[in-house]
Amino acid sequence: MLEFDSKIQFKKKENDVLTLGEILIDMISVDYDDNFECDTYQRYFGGSPANIAINVKNLGINSAVSSAVGNDGFGNFLINSLLKNGVDIESVQNVNYATSLVMVTKSKSTPTPIFYRSADYHLQYTTKLEKTLLKSRIIHFSCWPISREPARSTIEKVIEVAKVNQVLVGFDPNFHPMIWSEGEDGIDYVKAIIKNVDVVKPSEDDAERLFGKDTPENQLKKFLQLGANLVILTLGKNGAIVSNGKETIRFNTLAKEVVDTTGAGDAFWSGFYTGLIKGHTIRESLALGFGVSAFKLKYTGAVINLPKIERIKTIYNLQEGLEKNGS
Amino acid sequence: MLEFDSKIQFKKKENDVLTLGEILIDMISVDYDDNFECDTYQRYFGGSPANIAINVKNLGINSAVSSAVGNDGFGNFLINSLLKNGVDIESVQNVNYATSLVMVTKSKSTPTPIFYRSADYHLQYTTKLEKTLLKSRIIHFSCWPISREPARSTIEKVIEVAKVNQVLVGFDPNFHPMIWSEGEDGIDYVKAIIKNVDVVKPSEDDAERLFGKDTPENQLKKFLQLGANLVILTLGKNGAIVSNGKETIRFNTLAKEVVDTTGAGDAFWSGFYTGLIKGHTIRESLALGFGVSAFKLKYTGAVINLPKIERIKTIYNLQEGLEKNGS
Repeated sequence: MLEFDSKIQFKKKENDVLTLGEILIDMISVDYDDNFECDTYQRYFGGSPANIAINVKNLGINSAVSSAVGNDGFGNFLINSLLKNGVDIESVQNVNYATSLVMVTKSKSTPTPIFYRSADYHLQYTTKLEKTLLKSRIIHFSCWPISREPARSTIEKVIEVAKVNQVLVGFDPNFHPMIWSEGEDGIDYVKAIIKNVDVVKPSEDDAERLFGKDTPENQLKKFLQLGANLVILTLGKNGAIVSNGKETIRFNTLAKEVVDTTGAGDAFWSGFYTGLIKGHTIRESLALGFGVSAFKLKYTGAVINLPKIERIKTIYNLQEGLEKNGS
Repeated sequence: MLEFDSKIQFKKKENDVLTLGEILIDMISVDYDDNFECDTYQRYFGGSPANIAINVKNLGINSAVSSAVGNDGFGNFLINSLLKNGVDIESVQNVNYATSLVMVTKSKSTPTPIFYRSADYHLQYTTKLEKTLLKSRIIHFSCWPISREPARSTIEKVIEVAKVNQVLVGFDPNFHPMIWSEGEDGIDYVKAIIKNVDVVKPSEDDAERLFGKDTPENQLKKFLQLGANLVILTLGKNGAIVSNGKETIRFNTLAKEVVDTTGAGDAFWSGFYTGLIKGHTIRESLALGFGVSAFKLKYTGAVINLPKIERIKTIYNLQEGLEKNGS
């Protein structure tokens, strides 16, 4: 049971957060465009776990990334971006496949990206990966690595070793059929893995893709029934509801200004993990997550230059309000 | 035996050239750059068979393309480009994979592209494809479709049906290990398929990748021994040597000005096929191929706005010189 007002007692370890899975190139159209009619595209650093690793580093804790990139210029660019941000890259793997890439059109609607997955799902369970895992307090992954082999088996092994070593496991159930191999029902696999993780943070869209349409309260229950210890269901401008199976609490959004929603979920995870590592209760850490998310929403880009977590506390008046938030 | 001074007697058919295989997006860096350090890339129409289809249409004969593209904006862009150029797209297939893409850096050296293959090799042998095949006089493909299933089986079936129906088969043995699946020795497969085709046009680099380093004359012999009827070995600025197994002839380059070598090989194929269809002898058609290639070399881009084949004859003085060239 993860009690809202208790703190998670982490073992003393060298690294705080290890994110595993996709690190990739986002190629984003220069002009607004709904269907790739634009001629010119720009290369950006991307991949949700990799974004979280950079975010938490900016917020003030340590991070490492375990991902696979190609032996190509894009792979070098991604590794250098992590290095520049002080992220531990000891367990980034170079493989003989192209660095994964996603083509995105800048749009006011939500156009479907074009996915070019290659290196990212070739992540292997290696001695180096295990070494990084054993020196970490929290691990985090999304649906990407579990959607294809050999990354799926790698994550299964990672979870197994994490459990034995009291590493907290966070999972982003960002299920999308496009990233799954054709012919396999990813939904069943995603549902099955939830019992093995501690924290899940679905959006309403994620929940709908997994369970069909339903009320937020019912969706929350379904994740709990699958065996998650803590479920954070985000509801966009309506905030979030969070349950540990015993108690359900509501959070209102802290965002007053929304410029770009890209990366808001990653920003939440980053603030939440940083809160836990800095010794806050789960309730306080959730509030910090929503604070970081609100801050990110004011700026364009998946990864922005986040301030230290203490500054987020001040901006959103979470300094003394932490205990009162989430009720 | 393909005699140099005889003409190929094609059956009367609705379409002249059918090219099969890769149609793809070339994303080319805006700045000169050797290792994908450039931020900005531009989207171009690409894929050697698709380029040939557009070229021959410009030169004055008909063409069709059988390729697979994704159900995405890039697929639409490629199909629209073919349509605008008057190419028959009846047997272009839409598949549930991303439209294939190649990242290229503009460079004065020859940097390795990054290949994102997906839709292109999912080409299936369909009723529509067979219909287009049966109404065509020449078919053409490169190493791309034969490097992966199901496109490989599709090409094998296409060759089989082409042979029964006296369709001329041209094959570009542009072997490169990067496009092959890891673990399979593509070299053996490429060597084995040569006995089933009529015309091959290797470059010296292609020959070296297949057989190792050797003299042009020896390389030519190796292709003949594998069973090709006509081998055109291009030697860059040193022209080409061509053999039908009985006689070997040499062509000097017609190029006086070289601005960009991209697409020069496709330009050759295009002029050669147009010559054959227009009723020229093999020797004359080879000369026309080298004429179109020389014309293309003066301009930047894989597909340029080629003039009618008659204009190429005039520019390169091939009007009366056709019989004398190639000796």
